[in-house]
Amino acid sequence: MTEIKIQKNVLSKNDELAAELRRDFARKGVLVLNMLSSPGSGKTTLLEKTARALAGKLRIAAIEGDLQTERDADRIRAAGVRAVQINTGRGCHLDANMIANILPKLEVAELDVLFIENVGNLVCPAAFDLGEDFAVLLMSVTEGDDKPAKYPTAFLKADLLVLNKLDLQPYTNFDIERFRGDVARVKPSLPMLQVSCTTEQGLESWFQWIERKTKAKRERPRR
Amino acid sequence: MTEIKIQKNVLSKNDELAAELRRDFARKGVLVLNMLSSPGSGKTTLLEKTARALAGKLRIAAIEGDLQTERDADRIRAAGVRAVQINTGRGCHLDANMIANILPKLEVAELDVLFIENVGNLVCPAAFDLGEDFAVLLMSVTEGDDKPAKYPTAFLKADLLVLNKLDLQPYTNFDIERFRGDVARVKPSLPMLQVSCTTEQGLESWFQWIERKTKAKRERPRR
Repeated sequence: MTEIKIQKNVLSKNDELAAELRRDFARKGVLVLNMLSSPGSGKTTLLEKTARALAGKLRIAAIEGDLQTERDADRIRAAGVRAVQINTGRGCHLDANMIANILPKLEVAELDVLFIENVGNLVCPAAFDLGEDFAVLLMSVTEGDDKPAKYPTAFLKADLLVLNKLDLQPYTNFDIERFRGDVARVKPSLPMLQVSCTTEQGLESWFQWIERKTKAKRERPRR
Repeated sequence: MTEIKIQKNVLSKNDELAAELRRDFARKGVLVLNMLSSPGSGKTTLLEKTARALAGKLRIAAIEGDLQTERDADRIRAAGVRAVQINTGRGCHLDANMIANILPKLEVAELDVLFIENVGNLVCPAAFDLGEDFAVLLMSVTEGDDKPAKYPTAFLKADLLVLNKLDLQPYTNFDIERFRGDVARVKPSLPMLQVSCTTEQGLESWFQWIERKTKAKRERPRR
């Protein structure tokens, strides 16, 4: 009982700070994307490809969330993008306070898009607002088509679903139509892109989605 | 600060109850395996194959942990094994209290092996002892070979590592030697089995591991 109350208190404090961050991001006209997925769905690879494809078009930076290591930030930097790492230790998600603390290391006002790569976890990150414009859920076909029913909170939080590793689908029993049906039962309005970071199939739609949202944010910033 | 204290308190209460469960499992001579992995690594498929292979040799039951649905318990039951489902709602792990509450639904004293399929999550379940004899970490090659350094707590907790989906390795950039090196840096003593639930390659070693541990548990129960 006490635990539940404290949990609610932590969440409401987080939501207040996230609302402040959202106002700040709006004033600065930067599009912020909170990237959620299981470990190993390909978030960092997708960001590498995105950084390379949009270099010269958009000014991009990334916040990398991991329990330990700077590996992901190093990979993103190697793709030519400014990246800062948050190591959460045993912490299973990023929260608004971690984002607020690391923002001074990034010149946010000079950015078009800020990617936040959350800790690989389909459960806890879904409960914490980071002030993002959109939550993007990445899933790979190798994880199985039963995930929407089993992890509904992540699908409910998501504003866009990116289904990755399409190139491996022929070697799995992943049924895209069954998956689509399950997604629709959890959140009928959730749009889905199908991509493969290996073959680059479908990535163009993802880049276009980012460009469209960046343009909309500049023209009509959220408050 | 308060949050940290409460977290420690929750963990120490969990550990006390887990110790009680462990004594109870020892008295009843049942081998208890806590199965940890990311979502979609193949825990349920591995348990289905195991249930079918060991039917007639060992008396098996399973506790299935998921946010929602009875799907996994249904799959395990279809494989001929008694299974009970714990739905955690938004909860990101099983704890000792959930196990203690559901045990009356299983006739534990009549069992040789009890599998506990934890919530798919590489972070939070690693912090909660369930009274198990062994924590088994399942990982699939499609998740990438960088996981030991990025999620060390799960590897540290594990007593056995099962690397799954070997059949998909040729289609990925997963480097088994690099992975083995990274595992050894986190936990040099951690043994690894390599399997594919699809082709059944390597499953025999996993079945033999269970049979050996079951025999040892019967002959020299832990206290």
